[in-house]
Amino acid sequence: MKKITILGSTGSIGVSTLDVIEKNPKAFKVTALAAGRNVNLLAQQIAKFDPEIVAVSAREEAVNLRKILGLKKKIPILYDEKGVEEVASYSASDIVLSAISGAAGLKPTLAAMEAGKDIALANKETMVIAGHIVTRRAKQKKIKILPVDSEHSAIFQCLAGQKTQNLRRILLTASGGPFLNLSGADLKKVTLAQALRHPRWKMGSKITIDSASLMNKGLEVIEAKWLFDMDIARIDVLIHPQSVVHSMIELKDGSVLAQLGIADMRIPIAYALTYPDRLLNELPALNLAEIRSLDFFKPDMKKFPCLGLAYEAGRLGGTAPVVLNAANETAVAAFTEKKICFNDLPKVIEKVMDKHRVKKNPSLDDILGTDREARIQAGMIVNKLRKR
Amino acid sequence: MKKITILGSTGSIGVSTLDVIEKNPKAFKVTALAAGRNVNLLAQQIAKFDPEIVAVSAREEAVNLRKILGLKKKIPILYDEKGVEEVASYSASDIVLSAISGAAGLKPTLAAMEAGKDIALANKETMVIAGHIVTRRAKQKKIKILPVDSEHSAIFQCLAGQKTQNLRRILLTASGGPFLNLSGADLKKVTLAQALRHPRWKMGSKITIDSASLMNKGLEVIEAKWLFDMDIARIDVLIHPQSVVHSMIELKDGSVLAQLGIADMRIPIAYALTYPDRLLNELPALNLAEIRSLDFFKPDMKKFPCLGLAYEAGRLGGTAPVVLNAANETAVAAFTEKKICFNDLPKVIEKVMDKHRVKKNPSLDDILGTDREARIQAGMIVNKLRKR
Repeated sequence: MKKITILGSTGSIGVSTLDVIEKNPKAFKVTALAAGRNVNLLAQQIAKFDPEIVAVSAREEAVNLRKILGLKKKIPILYDEKGVEEVASYSASDIVLSAISGAAGLKPTLAAMEAGKDIALANKETMVIAGHIVTRRAKQKKIKILPVDSEHSAIFQCLAGQKTQNLRRILLTASGGPFLNLSGADLKKVTLAQALRHPRWKMGSKITIDSASLMNKGLEVIEAKWLFDMDIARIDVLIHPQSVVHSMIELKDGSVLAQLGIADMRIPIAYALTYPDRLLNELPALNLAEIRSLDFFKPDMKKFPCLGLAYEAGRLGGTAPVVLNAANETAVAAFTEKKICFNDLPKVIEKVMDKHRVKKNPSLDDILGTDREARIQAGMIVNKLRKR
Repeated sequence: MKKITILGSTGSIGVSTLDVIEKNPKAFKVTALAAGRNVNLLAQQIAKFDPEIVAVSAREEAVNLRKILGLKKKIPILYDEKGVEEVASYSASDIVLSAISGAAGLKPTLAAMEAGKDIALANKETMVIAGHIVTRRAKQKKIKILPVDSEHSAIFQCLAGQKTQNLRRILLTASGGPFLNLSGADLKKVTLAQALRHPRWKMGSKITIDSASLMNKGLEVIEAKWLFDMDIARIDVLIHPQSVVHSMIELKDGSVLAQLGIADMRIPIAYALTYPDRLLNELPALNLAEIRSLDFFKPDMKKFPCLGLAYEAGRLGGTAPVVLNAANETAVAAFTEKKICFNDLPKVIEKVMDKHRVKKNPSLDDILGTDREARIQAGMIVNKLRKR
């Protein structure tokens, strides 16, 4: 029985993970949960999965959660950054599923690693902004980093049984998002509601908007660079609207291996939790004869400048991806609050990146400082754009 | 340096294998060659690759080959079945590439196995007619059977790193051959020349005609059953006209792994010879954005009855696949000699199969006897059809 901590249990990945655990009660036990502000859902999860410890984002949520649970329920409720980190490093767990959205996922993930836990990584920002620190520490502490993103899980599955020195190229597939077939002019007019309507995957709002701008794919390129120790120049993105091929690897003899499946995050989540084994599930099998056709083409880098910005940040390395990510998080939040329009996303990011002087091999403090600074810069640019 | 024997060196697979060897002189050395009647090509191969021993199909060819080589070239030239088997079991070799076409490949392959050689298997008929003997003997003698067929190589590549008990289904892809889009009525009128025009692969004439009738895919289903210890009911065929996905496996969690590549036999040949490593080559990379679309649909079992006959023979087991294969070889030879028409192929096979009483778990003698008998039966049916 594997004992599991979930960081971000009330988010889309957290909920899917709990569904996998619920359906496999002999394989898994939830030992610890950390969530943000959705204390009602967290209370339900506590009732159902009976963890030994939980954390929420702040004192107010901890008080609310205690009210809902009642005084009879004996469970420590921690809060704030420190509380989440304590849950992340909770000693009884074997593996920590890291699914807090955004750069906020970094410190809890590092705390889990310091405690020697294997990481099932759904928080791609951790790798994007601190890949060199995370991979180095994982090697030192002999910790497994198991990808949960469907694309990286696909690559990880394809690599099983292959020698890494035979890997020539990574082919990351992208659905292309809801705006794939819009013209550049149309893109100026898209609404928040339209951006939140992903054609293939049900996900949280941040990642759904990132999918619409292709920034999500850009972040995945940088994540893949670190996870698979691969030069950015050897990571390609292919638009594949059906989202059936979740990603591919090209080996040195020209052979290409691909992982395919229905668009359901429970498959890669379960694989990360049970690797190298696999779990039975009740999901429908992939029916290629019914889908009939799989399309592939190159992404339009002009229409979706975020992808190019991410490649640029990945090539520059150092603090560049930190700035990319912080500016993007700020811009997406502003778009979600309808402060800026969809086409403003790359403008904000590019302006913050242009002003930044890249620092190579940054420390954790450098990263956190750069992150804060870039958010301030991005906020200022957002405000200027609002005044138009 | 791997020392290699090639059985069927002047055929399509033999020639491609020698090309792989020529391009990797540090990795491979040819130690022995066996060919049929094409002594001119064999003489060229001897001059270029300098094997230690060769065999041809009969005394006449041996005499001709000696004439071409001259008396100065000191190399033993064997002939007949015994000579080919001696080459197959030649002691200096590490691995034997078995690429003699048809049931004739069985005995030399078994001879190589008795001599303890690993087998790179291009001769699918060996597995079709004697899978139970070959797999049992391979296990006893701890011999590797490395598939060379692009489909089985694909499955083999996908299975690397996966636990076999997690394998749920095999998805064999088929180009559909040159007659994929013809109506049943059109099929009656197709010529030999049309049947020999495969849209994707350059191969020998027997396998090209088998591809046109889908019998090749049927034989591959039975081959897959033995190679991967899989119930026939869990092996599906999918028509995939672009021949980019060479085959797939479905795992128990619904995840599907696929191997893709350009249509060049040198990739699976090299993999069989170097497994688990891979060789660099100068072949163009697969360009999915250029191919743009991959199609998949179910085969039309009514239009292509050979596929259904093969499934039936595979389900029956025992001597049924021997009869299927012998009748098919006889019918294809008759079609190649323009004695019967394309639509007669399944008729001949079905009639011979109908008359046969299946023997379970046949011995090698049973197999060879059944093979002879079925060829006689098929020849008689061919003669009747000619008199129409």
